[in-house]
Amino acid sequence: MLKKLNHIAIVVPDLQAACETYKTRFNAAVSALKDLPAQGVTTAFVQMADSTVELLHPLGDKSPVARFLEKNPRGGIHHLCYEVDDLDVAMAALIDQGATILGDGQPKIGAHDKPVVFLDPRDFTGVLIELEQA
Amino acid sequence: MLKKLNHIAIVVPDLQAACETYKTRFNAAVSALKDLPAQGVTTAFVQMADSTVELLHPLGDKSPVARFLEKNPRGGIHHLCYEVDDLDVAMAALIDQGATILGDGQPKIGAHDKPVVFLDPRDFTGVLIELEQA
Repeated sequence: MLKKLNHIAIVVPDLQAACETYKTRFNAAVSALKDLPAQGVTTAFVQMADSTVELLHPLGDKSPVARFLEKNPRGGIHHLCYEVDDLDVAMAALIDQGATILGDGQPKIGAHDKPVVFLDPRDFTGVLIELEQA
Repeated sequence: MLKKLNHIAIVVPDLQAACETYKTRFNAAVSALKDLPAQGVTTAFVQMADSTVELLHPLGDKSPVARFLEKNPRGGIHHLCYEVDDLDVAMAALIDQGATILGDGQPKIGAHDKPVVFLDPRDFTGVLIELEQA
């Protein structure tokens, strides 16, 4: 069901410093910072050889990643995003198996301007998984 | 410097249950369980479309992942493993930049019978990174 690993999301305490770390230590290509006010995060994408890291930092006072950063002040891996061919079909199949879609259960527009949902980590060995319409 | 994302490692409280979750919910191919006594873990590999998950569970009473499981009883993402063309060259470059190799600083034989090292998460935005000789 899950297709391409779209990105690994890492919440960081200092976005500029994190970009520098990936640039200088791993020679990775790092995008410009982008504020996503509706999602309460500022992001930067890091292109590795065959995978992508999304660096996240809280934006605004209701950021969904603020609490994660409080619990993990050095930063840490926040979620994995996988693409699915048909988000509605994937959601229906997962709900049918007893899985829970977080929030109001409806897709939102994600960092790539495509519909996304997040799955309850309690159903997936403690891992927060984002599904993105391919 | 970092090449292919070899795997995303997830520590789980119940390895059989985690394998079932990946098989039934995501239709993923899951390997047989494998005990690695020297590394203090039992592993199973999950083949996703274009990426691999390594499920880990503590083995023995000195497992390096036991404390992680205590802190994250539902499980969670433990580390990212990237391949490098030449482990000695990569280690030298990272040490030159002030990064720290964990343990005694020498490569060990990892789950794929290849030399691996782990980098101190404090140098990499709180993320534990394994480097594996390609």
